[in-house]
Amino acid sequence: MITISLDSNSSLPMYRQIYEYIKEEILSGTLSFPEKLPSSRSLASFLQVSRSTVDTAYEQLVAEGYIEAKEKRGFYVNSITHTTNFDLPAPASPVENENSAHTWIQFDFNPDAIDTTHFPYSIWKSLGKNEMDNPENFLLGDHLGELPLRRAISAYLHGSRGVFCTPENIVVGAGLDYLLQMICLMFDRKEKIAMEDPGYHSARQIFLANGYSLTDIPLQNATFDVDALARSKADICYVTPSHQFPLGSVMGIRERQKLLSWASKAENRYIIEDDHDSEFRYKGKPIPALQSLDRCQNVIYIGSLSKAISPAIRVGYMVLPDSLMESYRQICSIYACPVSRTSQAVLTSFIREGYFEKHLNRMRKIYKAKHDFMVEQIKKNFPTSQIQISGDNAGLYIILRYLGTLSEEEILDRAEKNGIRLRSLRSCYANLPADYRPAFLLGFAGLEESNIKDGITILAKEVFT
Amino acid sequence: MITISLDSNSSLPMYRQIYEYIKEEILSGTLSFPEKLPSSRSLASFLQVSRSTVDTAYEQLVAEGYIEAKEKRGFYVNSITHTTNFDLPAPASPVENENSAHTWIQFDFNPDAIDTTHFPYSIWKSLGKNEMDNPENFLLGDHLGELPLRRAISAYLHGSRGVFCTPENIVVGAGLDYLLQMICLMFDRKEKIAMEDPGYHSARQIFLANGYSLTDIPLQNATFDVDALARSKADICYVTPSHQFPLGSVMGIRERQKLLSWASKAENRYIIEDDHDSEFRYKGKPIPALQSLDRCQNVIYIGSLSKAISPAIRVGYMVLPDSLMESYRQICSIYACPVSRTSQAVLTSFIREGYFEKHLNRMRKIYKAKHDFMVEQIKKNFPTSQIQISGDNAGLYIILRYLGTLSEEEILDRAEKNGIRLRSLRSCYANLPADYRPAFLLGFAGLEESNIKDGITILAKEVFT
Repeated sequence: MITISLDSNSSLPMYRQIYEYIKEEILSGTLSFPEKLPSSRSLASFLQVSRSTVDTAYEQLVAEGYIEAKEKRGFYVNSITHTTNFDLPAPASPVENENSAHTWIQFDFNPDAIDTTHFPYSIWKSLGKNEMDNPENFLLGDHLGELPLRRAISAYLHGSRGVFCTPENIVVGAGLDYLLQMICLMFDRKEKIAMEDPGYHSARQIFLANGYSLTDIPLQNATFDVDALARSKADICYVTPSHQFPLGSVMGIRERQKLLSWASKAENRYIIEDDHDSEFRYKGKPIPALQSLDRCQNVIYIGSLSKAISPAIRVGYMVLPDSLMESYRQICSIYACPVSRTSQAVLTSFIREGYFEKHLNRMRKIYKAKHDFMVEQIKKNFPTSQIQISGDNAGLYIILRYLGTLSEEEILDRAEKNGIRLRSLRSCYANLPADYRPAFLLGFAGLEESNIKDGITILAKEVFT
Repeated sequence: MITISLDSNSSLPMYRQIYEYIKEEILSGTLSFPEKLPSSRSLASFLQVSRSTVDTAYEQLVAEGYIEAKEKRGFYVNSITHTTNFDLPAPASPVENENSAHTWIQFDFNPDAIDTTHFPYSIWKSLGKNEMDNPENFLLGDHLGELPLRRAISAYLHGSRGVFCTPENIVVGAGLDYLLQMICLMFDRKEKIAMEDPGYHSARQIFLANGYSLTDIPLQNATFDVDALARSKADICYVTPSHQFPLGSVMGIRERQKLLSWASKAENRYIIEDDHDSEFRYKGKPIPALQSLDRCQNVIYIGSLSKAISPAIRVGYMVLPDSLMESYRQICSIYACPVSRTSQAVLTSFIREGYFEKHLNRMRKIYKAKHDFMVEQIKKNFPTSQIQISGDNAGLYIILRYLGTLSEEEILDRAEKNGIRLRSLRSCYANLPADYRPAFLLGFAGLEESNIKDGITILAKEVFT
């Protein structure tokens, strides 16, 4: 008989204590194959518990494979391999937090940062109130994103970016990275993808992680070289026509037409247009999307709300040509839309009721002021012979090119020591040009004017000297 | 001079009207390379507008590449290729809604459905109230998911599933599909992945979409065959040990140990444990996760909240062995956590304050009642010689195997005609066994008892006869 000291005061129910005891006995080898267990009736009477308690414990042990029930014969211990696994120590202690050793950064000119102080939180919250307890938002929705949201995005893109689209061609995803991932699944990994050089390093990494080979098209005077693209033999190209990342230049109409003409000249050529930052232009009106000129259905248009609303709400969208919708459905419909339906519903109202456009207009003014202030501070603090500013009048950062004698490493090092974090342009290059000079992406969106002022002053007085 | 009929009552600002006019003239070829435009001063005086209005229009045209500013010489029209693109008709009308032609379905035995009537909406809403207007939730967060959420998940998994983990090993993602996608990026596509047959078709599709080759391990009496796995030469295997999908069987301790021992016997062998539905067992206590027995760090554990909370909140999690954390960081850190920070924060409180466990306990009872009711209805309505029930006592569906003479197509067809949607087991097989009999996954979670009763009655009286 099995002697189990049952504890009626334990938080563990009786059946569980029996189960745990027998399991341990089997794992340790005390009870072993092909031993027979006492019948549940006799064990129950021995332990002074109800028979159903023992039955429950036995059933669990059967379910987990520790013992076997043989019809009309009773319960038998199964043969369990006592692998050395069990003698090994438990895994090592948790990985150290990798950020713990960083020096204290006072001014972070992060080009990806946004200003979160002017968001209409109370409106967002009140829109959320109607959606948080709507059971409809708890049922699995459309893998492309909910139709009302796609309608709202479609109207916005058509009106503000000239994008030609119907809600049926829109895919809602969790930001640019997610949407590029989906695009990677739609094409054959044998394809070559052409990229701007310098270009968007995250897109580069995503294409590489998906097994694509890349061909880099060096920008000529910050301009995309369509002839080099044609020579490259790539059939897919990824470009940022409205605000070249990172240089900030605008692709001219001549290059746009050349690029579209290149795409129309062979089957299955596609242009991935990343329209990042396009909402924020501080001079003239926004440049219409390349997609708005496309009449041959060769452009995949991608945008996100990371800058316009927040990078943390994880919402982006892409407009697929009709020719790709079918393959999207075939290959990507296994992936549910990653944006929660509650978020989608809140966002739909936010766009449809005009709050989004109002917010954009407001932020455009605020960012323009910050942008102008930063440029002014730079001009005031640096000798003109020492630096060059470019990529201005749009987006959330400018490029500061340094013409002095310090190396980029020295500058980055000095900056960190002075509590300033800079991002070098270098990491955006696949092939660094011979005439590369140290240059930095200086974000202004996430900083207050006073911080911009102090940060730039320190840069001029302590770092670039 | 350029004659533009400016409309001072138009909603378009003056500069924009000038810009649009000149752009059209260039696109249509009326103005062409290398024509010189009037100076902004003379055009402004001609049009009776301020000079800055014309300057703004010209700047925009320069920015978009339609014209060029030559220093001290003025503005010149660029050479634009008039591609035939522009003569093509606009894209065809929107794709028809593919669901529009379906017959009216009254009873959908969807195995993926959940019961949304008993969710504690008011609690969820009140937790949301604190998070919707928190600016912190609008800043880009940790790509693994926020630490408080990972802590909450870690505690839950350890307590309820026996999973050994630290918050540092947890990755939060948008459900199983998203997490499998991330896993696909971490391994070499030359690897072969072994899968249960029958198995989870969506996982199968995701592996294939990522270029992996698959090897199918036929289940023997609903049991995973580790010897066949060893023979297959695969180094990665995807299994559902706690509740085999679709058959509902539990992997016994013997197979679990064999499987772990297989994984420990060579470098870089990994077991992907999909612990779906594991929260819902109606007999005995939940079966501990396979990962809880792993001492060699070979198991990647994945779970999701699609069944436990909702498929539409898009939250899942995986526990990576230490050995894979570094490659996750290297390859996957470009992908931001796809779950919005607001959702993460609400969920964290929901778990930490005990609502999640309370909800699970409540739903377990509700689902058990529905499960028992469905089994009872089936037993009452069908002759025992005609059907077999399996995969019961856990999850949100049962399997109904049909032993009569009708073909599966006939049954599905009749069911649809009677307003009932069934899912056949067939689609879960890579290789249909010779002795396959028509079988269906009958979900009960999303249906009321009255619907279960009526649906089963119609199945017995009108469909399976």
